[in-house]
Amino acid sequence: MKVLVINTGSSSIKYQLFDMPKGAVLCTGLVEKVGEDESILTHKKYPDSDEEVKHIETNPIKDHTVGMNRVAELLIDPAWGVLGSAKEIDLVGHRVVHGGESFSSTTEITQEVKDKIKELSPLAPLHNPANLIGIEVAEQIFTNARQIAVFDTAFHHSLPEEAYRYAIPNSLYEENGIRVYGFHGTSHRYITKRAASLLDKPLNKLNIVTIHLGNGASMAAIKNGKSIDTTLGLTPLPGLVMGTRSGDIDPGVIFYLNETLGYSLPEIKSLLNKESGLKGLAGDNDMRSVTERAEAGDKEAMLALAIYTYRIKKYIGAYMAAIGAKPDAVVFTAGVGENSAVIRSMSVDGLSHLGIEIDAELNKARGGERKISTLESAVAIWVIPTNEELEIARQAFELT
Amino acid sequence: MKVLVINTGSSSIKYQLFDMPKGAVLCTGLVEKVGEDESILTHKKYPDSDEEVKHIETNPIKDHTVGMNRVAELLIDPAWGVLGSAKEIDLVGHRVVHGGESFSSTTEITQEVKDKIKELSPLAPLHNPANLIGIEVAEQIFTNARQIAVFDTAFHHSLPEEAYRYAIPNSLYEENGIRVYGFHGTSHRYITKRAASLLDKPLNKLNIVTIHLGNGASMAAIKNGKSIDTTLGLTPLPGLVMGTRSGDIDPGVIFYLNETLGYSLPEIKSLLNKESGLKGLAGDNDMRSVTERAEAGDKEAMLALAIYTYRIKKYIGAYMAAIGAKPDAVVFTAGVGENSAVIRSMSVDGLSHLGIEIDAELNKARGGERKISTLESAVAIWVIPTNEELEIARQAFELT
Repeated sequence: MKVLVINTGSSSIKYQLFDMPKGAVLCTGLVEKVGEDESILTHKKYPDSDEEVKHIETNPIKDHTVGMNRVAELLIDPAWGVLGSAKEIDLVGHRVVHGGESFSSTTEITQEVKDKIKELSPLAPLHNPANLIGIEVAEQIFTNARQIAVFDTAFHHSLPEEAYRYAIPNSLYEENGIRVYGFHGTSHRYITKRAASLLDKPLNKLNIVTIHLGNGASMAAIKNGKSIDTTLGLTPLPGLVMGTRSGDIDPGVIFYLNETLGYSLPEIKSLLNKESGLKGLAGDNDMRSVTERAEAGDKEAMLALAIYTYRIKKYIGAYMAAIGAKPDAVVFTAGVGENSAVIRSMSVDGLSHLGIEIDAELNKARGGERKISTLESAVAIWVIPTNEELEIARQAFELT
Repeated sequence: MKVLVINTGSSSIKYQLFDMPKGAVLCTGLVEKVGEDESILTHKKYPDSDEEVKHIETNPIKDHTVGMNRVAELLIDPAWGVLGSAKEIDLVGHRVVHGGESFSSTTEITQEVKDKIKELSPLAPLHNPANLIGIEVAEQIFTNARQIAVFDTAFHHSLPEEAYRYAIPNSLYEENGIRVYGFHGTSHRYITKRAASLLDKPLNKLNIVTIHLGNGASMAAIKNGKSIDTTLGLTPLPGLVMGTRSGDIDPGVIFYLNETLGYSLPEIKSLLNKESGLKGLAGDNDMRSVTERAEAGDKEAMLALAIYTYRIKKYIGAYMAAIGAKPDAVVFTAGVGENSAVIRSMSVDGLSHLGIEIDAELNKARGGERKISTLESAVAIWVIPTNEELEIARQAFELT
């Protein structure tokens, strides 16, 4: 069965074509700068295999409809494609960022579902409207396929009330839905399932702390296979230090910036979302270059890494307390989590009294799913590369 | 030596007269509703002793000068006072809320110190100006005394940079001083010194987590006798759930309240500071009545306690990670921490895997400094009543 996974951003379309249930990737690609004069489409057939064929084209792609049509053409192109016709696609799995309280699991898309995704747009103003465009375009082009929505919030639907409620007036939750939703759910779910398999534990007995460190970053406390807490909230701003986002900050800072320093609220929003995090501390949101500078002795970069990893360390402790039992493992994933030995090492430094002990040699090794804790470590430490697209394909497939 | 300790609020004056170095309390009192028509002055001679004499008067007290002069009269009153003259007071110790980065310890007050306290007012707009009025009035009345400032932020001066910096642009710290300062420092310091004594450990080897639960609330991680992290920040808003303050919240909630629900920034500030916390969740900021309702099965009150204690529990874990070694003790203090067995019990419930185990019977006992953990608990749990006034008197006395 052919499953196309689509992740539509405001000016981009990411896609992967899977052969399910095998999970083989047939094609993968990215359309960037949709709506600009120099849109870039990067497409690969049989990626990361000996037969890989890569194709790049730069043409104006005026909107998502044009972009998705071009993707459909490439999928059936004799040289770059793998299909005889777009009708061979049985399922389209869409990443949808915000499912609010309405969607606790993967859902086949109906008009009602689309209305609900639209209704939830104020909670994810950059993402849900773009996701909706992706759905509507895909419905027009892949007319044979069932359209499936996989929500980034759904995995965190299991949070208990004490973890998802803020200490603000009840009516703001009851009438306005202000609560922790959490994001990166598809990644945390994928990691949780892989960890159960790798640790040879039944999913419903698995206790782990998952640490997703990409440009966005979040952690989750997983108890008995379910998410019971997570660092992102109503919005993707709180929690860990991110590429350009501040993560946790005294909300009083916002009032101070406004009252004493004269910043307007839109300026503060932009400051905390786009000019903070690694970029604010080290002038650069690329972890590789910040790490290189830190290793060369740059004080600003060293401080940025110290703050970044101290935040992670505190959440490891917090989530060990939240889980209420010794976790089986702490798991690093996503770009930074998979590739940065120094970030992993600093994040768990000094935690041996909590049973967490990294093996310096194993931590240096690269690639693949790997355990990096010492034999003595009561809590295992793992690196598990995430694969959100495969998880979306699986969930879409499992629904059928 | 007679030491008068003064804590001046915007419409109140709290005072205690100590005989140092004994630490005996000679008089204590509170002037409330300064500036209103029905000001209330409550004064006690030899409080909590067999000789206690209590005096209450309700008269209009138009400002702090009038109030403080009346206090001075009572201190030398034949019936209610203990002094022959106000000149017998050798030291006046003032609680000053915000010492910014300028004051890392207790300081004799000079014009320069007063200028600096004034300069720091934007960081504590409700407190520093009131504290300054208290200082100036005391200078006029107690002309014989040296005036000493004890800063609520000073104990947290030892925070390392990774703990006190927010992940926002460097210039906001370097030019505008936006960082974690922390508060309740006098209480955390007092508790730390008492814990060293009670646990029979040298102060510079003591690792504890202190939990100050009053109407305001904060925790601190104490490593080798020094504060290395704390839950309040630039302002007294973040961290634990408080009487009317939200504590930690996704800062994105502020933008959502403004953009989607139409709240103005002053409304949001008031909402998070005055209408949130226990009051927001249970409609009441009095922990006793919320607890009573919870025990009677009131769902709202039960949820409020669950959120309140879950936040504490996560910070216990976070600070165990921050300390980097098994702490010697977790210590509860202040109104709620000293008096609420149910809050203490819920806060450490399920932490036995971290070596923290409460003794249900010991936890029920009331009064005094007491250990409430089981014999098996690797980390001791203590209740230590705080005494900020005595700590201020001691610090003022030690400076001389």
